[in-house]
Parts: sequence; C-alpha cells; structure tokens
Amino acid sequence: GNALLSSYGTTIFEVMSRLSEEHGAINLGQGFPDDRGPADVLQTAADALLQGWNQYPSMMGTPDLRQALAAHARRFYGLDVDWKTETMVTSGATEALTACLLGLINPGDEVVLFQPMYDSYLPIVRLAGGVPRFVSLKAPDWSFSRADLEAAFSPRTKLVLINDPLNPAAKVFDRAELELIAEFVQRHDALAVCDEVYEHIVFDGRRHIPLMTLPGMRDRCLKIGSAGKTFSLTGWKVGYVTAAPHLLQPVAKAHQFLTFTTPPNLQTAVAYGLGKEEGYFTGLAAGLQAKRDRLAAGLASVGFDVLPSAGTYFVAADIGRFGFDGDDQAFCRWLVAEAKVAAIPVSAFFVENAPASVVRFCFSKRDEVLDEAIARLRNRF
Amino acid sequence: GNALLSSYGTTIFEVMSRLSEEHGAINLGQGFPDDRGPADVLQTAADALLQGWNQYPSMMGTPDLRQALAAHARRFYGLDVDWKTETMVTSGATEALTACLLGLINPGDEVVLFQPMYDSYLPIVRLAGGVPRFVSLKAPDWSFSRADLEAAFSPRTKLVLINDPLNPAAKVFDRAELELIAEFVQRHDALAVCDEVYEHIVFDGRRHIPLMTLPGMRDRCLKIGSAGKTFSLTGWKVGYVTAAPHLLQPVAKAHQFLTFTTPPNLQTAVAYGLGKEEGYFTGLAAGLQAKRDRLAAGLASVGFDVLPSAGTYFVAADIGRFGFDGDDQAFCRWLVAEAKVAAIPVSAFFVENAPASVVRFCFSKRDEVLDEAIARLRNRF
Ligand SMILES: CSCCC(=O)C(=O)O
Ligand SMILES: CSCCC(=O)C(=O)O
Repeated sequence: GNALLSSYGTTIFEVMSRLSEEHGAINLGQGFPDDRGPADVLQTAADALLQGWNQYPSMMGTPDLRQALAAHARRFYGLDVDWKTETMVTSGATEALTACLLGLINPGDEVVLFQPMYDSYLPIVRLAGGVPRFVSLKAPDWSFSRADLEAAFSPRTKLVLINDPLNPAAKVFDRAELELIAEFVQRHDALAVCDEVYEHIVFDGRRHIPLMTLPGMRDRCLKIGSAGKTFSLTGWKVGYVTAAPHLLQPVAKAHQFLTFTTPPNLQTAVAYGLGKEEGYFTGLAAGLQAKRDRLAAGLASVGFDVLPSAGTYFVAADIGRFGFDGDDQAFCRWLVAEAKVAAIPVSAFFVENAPASVVRFCFSKRDEVLDEAIARLRNRF
Repeated sequence: GNALLSSYGTTIFEVMSRLSEEHGAINLGQGFPDDRGPADVLQTAADALLQGWNQYPSMMGTPDLRQALAAHARRFYGLDVDWKTETMVTSGATEALTACLLGLINPGDEVVLFQPMYDSYLPIVRLAGGVPRFVSLKAPDWSFSRADLEAAFSPRTKLVLINDPLNPAAKVFDRAELELIAEFVQRHDALAVCDEVYEHIVFDGRRHIPLMTLPGMRDRCLKIGSAGKTFSLTGWKVGYVTAAPHLLQPVAKAHQFLTFTTPPNLQTAVAYGLGKEEGYFTGLAAGLQAKRDRLAAGLASVGFDVLPSAGTYFVAADIGRFGFDGDDQAFCRWLVAEAKVAAIPVSAFFVENAPASVVRFCFSKRDEVLDEAIARLRNRF
C-alpha cells in the first residue's frame, strides 16, 4: 500500500531493536530502562487488577489519575488545573501526540517542527493535512535563533510542536529560548503541543520549565506527559494531556477514535505514583545522571566525541573521527553487527539538514550493562 | 477546532454512560460486562506484571500472544497463520480498526460500509481520505440484496468494512450473505476489513464464520479480534489483527504512529486465555445467551417489540408503539432520566436511512441488574 501512513519505513527504534536481538547485541538503541520499576507502583497495579474494575473507564481517564495529574501540575509547576475539563489520559504519549495533532490541525495549516524530531511527528502532521515548517537545530549545541523562528512562523502557523527535554539531542530548553518561542506563538495567535515526556529527567540541578508556565501561554499549550518515562515502565503505555478546555475538547474527539481508553488498573497505579514524595522524582533524575556520567565517560575513554546531555535517557556522540564517511546509519549498522552494541543514527530524526555523523546512545541501563557495552566498544576502537 | 476528527460529537457510548451516572441509572447503554472476568486470566496478568517485563515489547506484540493468535485461528477456524508475519497486537480493536483504515486507504479510494455501523468507522474513513459508500440494512431482519451491493461497489472500491457479529443489530451473517460479499470483493479486486470482536459471542447453536475462511478470501481479509470481548475485560484494550503479510505490513506502519505497542503483561494473560479449553468459549456464549433471554423476555413483558439477537452483547427493540414520534434519541433521553435505565439510540449508527424507532440494550450484566432494570421499566410502561 502507499496510503498516507504506510509509505513510511518501520520506526528506527524497532528496526534497531530487531537488529540488536539478531546480533546478540547490547541494546543502547531504543530508549527504555532495564530495571523493574518502582515496586510499590507495580504492586498497586497488581492489586487494582485483581480487586478493581477491568471494564471501560471513562474515555477521559479514571478520576483518580486525572486528579493526580492536576495535583502534580500544581506541586511541580504551580499550575492550576481543573481535572474534570483540563486532563485526559491516553494509551501512551505517542497516542497523546497523535490525538493532539489530529484534533487540532486543519488541512493547510502550517506546523512548526524543530529538528531533530521524534519520528512519528511528521507522518501525523501530514496525515492531518498540515504543512511542516522546519527549524533545524545544529549540533553540538542544538541552538536556534530569532531569525530561524522568523523563517518558520507565518500567518498560517497553527501550532508549534516542541519536545523538551529533547530526544535525541538531550537538550533542555532554557527560559530565554522558551520565551522566544512563546513570543512567536503569541504573535501568530498559534498553539504549542509540548511533548514533555522527560519532564522529570533533567540533570545537574537544572529544572524543567513547561512552556505552559510562561506568561500568556497557559491557554495556548497542550502539555504531554508519560508514566512510562516517569516511572521507568515504558511498556505500560500510559500518557496524558493537560490543556485548557477549548483545546482539550477537540483532542478528546480524536482520542475516542484512536484507542478510546486505557487500562484502569494501570491508571490507578500511575495516580498513586504521581503522589509519591519528592525524593522519588529527584532520585529518578539522580540515578539517571549517574548513568549518563558512566556511559559518557566510557564513550570518551574509547575515543568518542561525546556531546553534552542535560536530560532524557540519551547521550549523543560525534563519530566523524571514526571514518564511515560520517555516515551515521552505516556506522550504526556496523556497530550492531561487529561491536554488538546497538545505537540510533541521529539523522533518522531529520528530513533535511541532518548532521552527518552523530549517533545516540541510551544510558538507562544497569551499570553492568553499560560497562559491558563499553568493554565491547573498547575491543573495536 | 474543526479539524477532521474534532468536528464529530462525543461518542454516543460515552455520552450515555455519563448521563447514566448523572441520573443514577442502570447502564444498559455502553457495551461491557459487569462481572470480574476469568480469575485465572486476571491472575496470569498480575503475575506477569509483578514478575515479568514491563518495558516496550515489540510493536507487533509479544511472541507468546502472537503464537496464541495463530493457534486460535487454527483451532477455531482451521486457518493456517504464520505468527511472525501475519499477526499484530493493538491497544484495543478500535486502534486495530483505525490502523487498518489509515494503513490501507488512499485518498479517493471508495470504502463500502454497512449501516448500522460502529461510530468510529466513518470519521476514520474520512480522515484517511476515503469516500464512503453505504449499504443500509433494514430492521427488523437487517438483510441486504445483491442489488444493494451492486449499487455500493464500483471500480474505485478499495475495501469493504464488515462487522460480524454486528453491533448494534445483533445480526450474525450467514454463509450465503458472506459468499455474496466475497463475490463482490473478488470481482472488484478489493479487500475486507473484518471487525469480528464478537466472534465468540454467537447464540442458538450458530457458528461464527470468518469471511477470511471463504474461498479466495484468505489474502483479501484483515480479521480484527478483541480480548476485551472474548474475556469480558473490556478495559484491557488488547486487540489484534490477522492478515496476509502484504496487508499487515502497511497496517503496522500506521500502528507504530498510533500507540506503537500494548502492555506486555496483559498480552501474556491474553495469550494464556486464548489457550483455554473449548468449554471456556462455549460457556461464554451460553452464559450470555441466557442473559439475552432474560432481558428479551423482560423487555417483551413490559411491552417492547423485541428484535432477534443472534450474537453480541446486545438486543434491540422497536419503540414505535411508545410514541415519542418514533424518535429513538428522545426516547433514550427520557428513559435514562425518568425510568433510570440507559440504552443506546440505534440511529446513532447511521448517517442516512436510519430506522426511526429502534433502541439497543446491553444484556452482559449480572442477573439482578437485568431484573432491576426490568422492574424500573415496568414502573414506567
Ligand atoms: C516508541 S519506541 C521509542 C522509544 C523512544 O522514545 C526512543 O528510543 O527515542
Ligand atoms: C468504545 S465504548 C463502546 C463499547 C461498544 O462496543 C458498544 O457499546 O457498542
């Protein structure tokens, strides 16, 4: 078929995970932790499964989780959120994103996308009839300028899609950058879909700033979060959207035709998790920061040019010095087959202006796994 | 917004469930059972949650469930299915259906839809750029003719969407009807998306016949099933698609951008469930048949013109004799507020040629709930 969505390739994450398995490689490609996740959250899910309701919950999500989302927004960001009209649960952040784009974009609307971008963004923007306008961030610092935004925004801009913290660049947008984006969104009477799945995974004392908290942005932003990332349970596929009622309503219309609803026992467990004490959230970031340091040091020690990582599960590295004509895809194919370590070519996150020679490694793995990966790399470089 | 999907109303099932709650009504609207589901399947899910993998499984589904799907297809339908290339797990049958339509339809393709139809069909066909062509089944027998298909199929037909057993009509297509559809599909070199979520819920000694099993149809059909319906666990949102590799591949491309994957512990439990002995499946149908009889008899006793129900969770009834100008929507609004029983107006499943005065009741409820609903109706009629 060459229907709108089927013309795309299989997602790079699945492709590399399959190759990793075929080659018996260590999978530092697809982003997921390899620990068990918090025992109390798991137990809450099991209890709810065995004792609770296993039929359709409301398509908007269970009241317990929606209330917990509102409380979380207040606790972490000082946001006042009405759970009944401003929160919705989805079957993962991918579905949340798809529902936002399909619910808001009209055919012909322009959508500003920052590259590198997660690989579902563009296919869904196109499916909705949106016209992409790209802002290309450039390695190694992944910055952008006022002129870049001037070139991308227009009177036809409907929304900007921002992923912050940014996968795969491991960039955390600072307040000045967010203010610049907010200025353009307001000037063009546009919206912002904010993919903030790594909101609790920022390092070195930084704090994640939701675009929604900037002046004038409360009712222009749709904030997407992910229990998979916040509780190290990526297989659960529980995501959520927080937005003003007039924005959430059209998104809910799309959601009802995508999945309709999400397993209630998992929702109840995530509600419980969101209420955990501060120490859980700081511990999550601190644990991952130590893993970042471990992998980054190892990569540097075997000769990689490691780029900074301010958040997410990822650290990127320039592989130009290893040859391969700077071809990150060729490098990753070689790496998984010969070194038996899987990584992701960063060019997969671009449609144009891709950096030639950057690859992404996932560090959300047990220390011994990271050490073994480095040992394998050391044998090859 | 008036983006493609957001121009639709909130699904009638959610609307009636909310009204039901507001009025303290007995909810015979939205289709879900009110029992706990099979204890062994629940326990398998809890064990897998606590002891198993909670990170991303393959986007195609877990090997255990995909193997169980192939074994199920062989055991019940004599179908030879290669689990590695012909099965895919989705986050519920709604997602399966959306992935099939978005993966297969090209803009301008015609899609044959039988009315009454589930309310997500048309919005997704339109989102994909498909052009709907309707075949309207008429109460009370919900039959169709060769001439109806002649009128709906054309050289531009890409696929037909068939829901069998049919919600809300409670019709089970017989072999002659399926042969007629198969003839048209083959003559027009078209495909069939087969929403067979109620495949195990057929009554009175009938057997469900997958369209895929008819001569010449094996590689033209995409068969959709639902663990929610087969194990009375509608909140789990585990669905599946079985189809020839060349059909499944484009559908998987759509799936990866809708949800990507589905909780692995639920998949493992469904794999276990699909392997249960014959008695489980016959018991499911027998139990629901008894409930159908109980509710149908009760409805008749208070004066409803009850239509036949050959499968599904539902029985429909003509309410013309009660007045309301035959307006099924007005009747349902009155019923939930005054009699405190929720039902679904069947006109919600039509875009044209709707029968004026048919409503749908769900009987997959505990006996005392059905009895109380009848008692409430008796007080009003
Ligand atoms: C849907 S699999 C992708 C996981 C992920 O977010 C990543 O590896 O970037
Ligand atoms: C997605 S809620 C709808 C449940 C159902 O299949 C029905 O009531 O018809």
